[in-house]
Amino acid sequence: MELGSILIMLVVLIVLAYTASYVFERLGVPGLIGEIVMGAVIANLAIGDWSFLGMLDIETGSDPSENYEILELFAELGVIFLLFSVGLETKVKDLLSIGKAAMLVATMGVIVPFVAGFALIQIYDGNMHHALFLGAAMVATSVGITARVIKDMKLTDKKESRIIIGAAVIDDILGMVVLAMVVGMTASGELSVSNIALISLEAAAFVIAAIAAAFWVVPKIYDYFEEMNKRPHTGKRGSGKGVDKLILAVVICFGVSWLADVIGLAAIIGAFLGGMLLAGCAPWWKLDEKMETVTTLFLSFFFLNVGMKVDIGSLTSGSAVLLAVVVILLAVATKYVGCNAGAWLGDKSLSKESRGIIGFGMAPRGEVGIIVAAIGLASGAMSSELYGVVVIMAVATTIVASPLLARAFRKKYPPEYEPTLEELV
Amino acid sequence: MELGSILIMLVVLIVLAYTASYVFERLGVPGLIGEIVMGAVIANLAIGDWSFLGMLDIETGSDPSENYEILELFAELGVIFLLFSVGLETKVKDLLSIGKAAMLVATMGVIVPFVAGFALIQIYDGNMHHALFLGAAMVATSVGITARVIKDMKLTDKKESRIIIGAAVIDDILGMVVLAMVVGMTASGELSVSNIALISLEAAAFVIAAIAAAFWVVPKIYDYFEEMNKRPHTGKRGSGKGVDKLILAVVICFGVSWLADVIGLAAIIGAFLGGMLLAGCAPWWKLDEKMETVTTLFLSFFFLNVGMKVDIGSLTSGSAVLLAVVVILLAVATKYVGCNAGAWLGDKSLSKESRGIIGFGMAPRGEVGIIVAAIGLASGAMSSELYGVVVIMAVATTIVASPLLARAFRKKYPPEYEPTLEELV
Repeated sequence: MELGSILIMLVVLIVLAYTASYVFERLGVPGLIGEIVMGAVIANLAIGDWSFLGMLDIETGSDPSENYEILELFAELGVIFLLFSVGLETKVKDLLSIGKAAMLVATMGVIVPFVAGFALIQIYDGNMHHALFLGAAMVATSVGITARVIKDMKLTDKKESRIIIGAAVIDDILGMVVLAMVVGMTASGELSVSNIALISLEAAAFVIAAIAAAFWVVPKIYDYFEEMNKRPHTGKRGSGKGVDKLILAVVICFGVSWLADVIGLAAIIGAFLGGMLLAGCAPWWKLDEKMETVTTLFLSFFFLNVGMKVDIGSLTSGSAVLLAVVVILLAVATKYVGCNAGAWLGDKSLSKESRGIIGFGMAPRGEVGIIVAAIGLASGAMSSELYGVVVIMAVATTIVASPLLARAFRKKYPPEYEPTLEELV
Repeated sequence: MELGSILIMLVVLIVLAYTASYVFERLGVPGLIGEIVMGAVIANLAIGDWSFLGMLDIETGSDPSENYEILELFAELGVIFLLFSVGLETKVKDLLSIGKAAMLVATMGVIVPFVAGFALIQIYDGNMHHALFLGAAMVATSVGITARVIKDMKLTDKKESRIIIGAAVIDDILGMVVLAMVVGMTASGELSVSNIALISLEAAAFVIAAIAAAFWVVPKIYDYFEEMNKRPHTGKRGSGKGVDKLILAVVICFGVSWLADVIGLAAIIGAFLGGMLLAGCAPWWKLDEKMETVTTLFLSFFFLNVGMKVDIGSLTSGSAVLLAVVVILLAVATKYVGCNAGAWLGDKSLSKESRGIIGFGMAPRGEVGIIVAAIGLASGAMSSELYGVVVIMAVATTIVASPLLARAFRKKYPPEYEPTLEELV
């Protein structure tokens, strides 16, 4: 690892990502799509070889693959910080109030895509393992993309936004259960009931523990720190910074993410729940502002990295192109129909427009679909062709869903945007 | 590289560093010393083996050395962000106004310690290579430690602080020239004039270019962004974030650091100059606030890492202990006397107290001394015993100098500290 080559890699990538994001936004497309496209361009120009960045370092021969590992770490930290920020704006009370709708949206958004994906591959090549894994990859919702669109449009406080985020969290948990089932079935040839029961229990216990902590433990910690910071600063012994809230927030963010990772859920679920723990104090502690700064610094690497995982060369045969197109259409349509129906079942007061917003908001598969595909490929249950199709599907649903979501939102909530003083300065 | 084990490593280290810093500050000692001591405790408990952190990851067998590389990267980014923040508060105009004093402080602070270190080893073992390298290690000033003490005490705007920072920058450049000379002499046996001339020219050109850019180029960029951000946000095409100043700041910070690294100077010199480029816009862009958040996140890793490099076991023989004690005393005394004399020569208006502040402010060797020692060890010009002594000297001067500096500052500027509303909330 060589500092100079890492610094220049970060500079080059930040400039490229920011330029792409800026150009796309000027064209009226969410900036994150620009970053994903830029990532795909970079990766396919360099064909998976990072030496074009390592070469910029004149002094030493640095290892490009090590630099890429740094990039991946920053990308992962970026999406963790994003979900934490989203969690900071999600009060437990609000989440419970939309709980029934979110639960039904998530459930229907899992069943419909899984059945459709499974059926499609049964028709396409009749391979049971392939069918199970494609179904599982169609289930996952990448809340990261939707969350950024919602944040960029400043609509975090809307009912639809909260249902989408809530459903995406439940959906991630259901998705992990489906993945565990599929892995179990393809490995042993039969369904292990105890295994499914274990992962379901773990996930449920984790979420319930987080919600309970948000209700009972966090207010006490909050009072304690308030008390400490009220002590007079004398400028002599014990003078200084008091307890830094950013440090506390980062510790909780990383700590709960690690817990989620350890019990076999995605780290980002932990980050979201960690943010939810602090949602009550966030406005007073100015946490959202501080996390905004940190998130800005890391998040572009995440979307660049999503784009970099697209290998355009793997999708040149006719049948692969056809399959990819069908899978993409099916992925968007089944999530839209399933979640729309779930929303209707869960909350009859939701208008057609609101259900449409929820349908599109749940469509992006992003990195979650890619993770499922990678597990399938590693276990030998998925062909490399199908792996390529899933990656393209995950990226395409992400790219297709964000403008559709932005349009649906804009239709219901027309912009009354006035630049604030701070943004003008 | 495994996300879960990195997350838990970061959590454990942040909590340990923060606890140590908090306890030391309650006792009236700068918090960074707590972090360095904690680093030494961690490293010497685990005896260079990081598996006690890797083991906390239940899922996978991760490679502890990879995790340590991440820690080192974060440490380096931390000190880069710190120097950038210090640069943000150093206006070129102010630096030039204290230029003569800073130049003489730096020059005297290089000559006196080098001669003393060289002479000491000539008496101790008579080895010319050892003597040259110890002299070079005694020259370097670690501005990072001093800068943090100054920042913590909120004294960045004082004349003494600006002389110290200015002299430390010049000192770093002179230190690199001395290091280049020493490396050249030990390698070829004689002094290569062209090599010394080259590195001196490069360094001078770099600093002059940075100052020129701060005068002519940056105001134009600043006007350009102001103009762009004045365009009305329509909420349709081109709506959105405008140009993010944090992104611009990080690009300049990393970019100039990389440049400094490439031409053979320390990356932190580049970070400081990069910050200086933006010093004019920093208050309007709220850059200091935003960088504060980012710096907080990374900086503890730097001081932990300084402590981790101390191998207490290598310093058990009697002669090593004696040598270490003499070197530490000589290192503090020669910097104090040299810089004090330089300050007196450069600015007759400086009081005795002010010269004392400058003398102690220049004393910490920190990571710069350690880097010199590491180069000497790698090239075979330094014994491992002497290497251990230099590392202990670098850490000890750092630990000894900060309370002395804090006391000298407090004597001249008694605390009139009132907690602001923001700190009470």
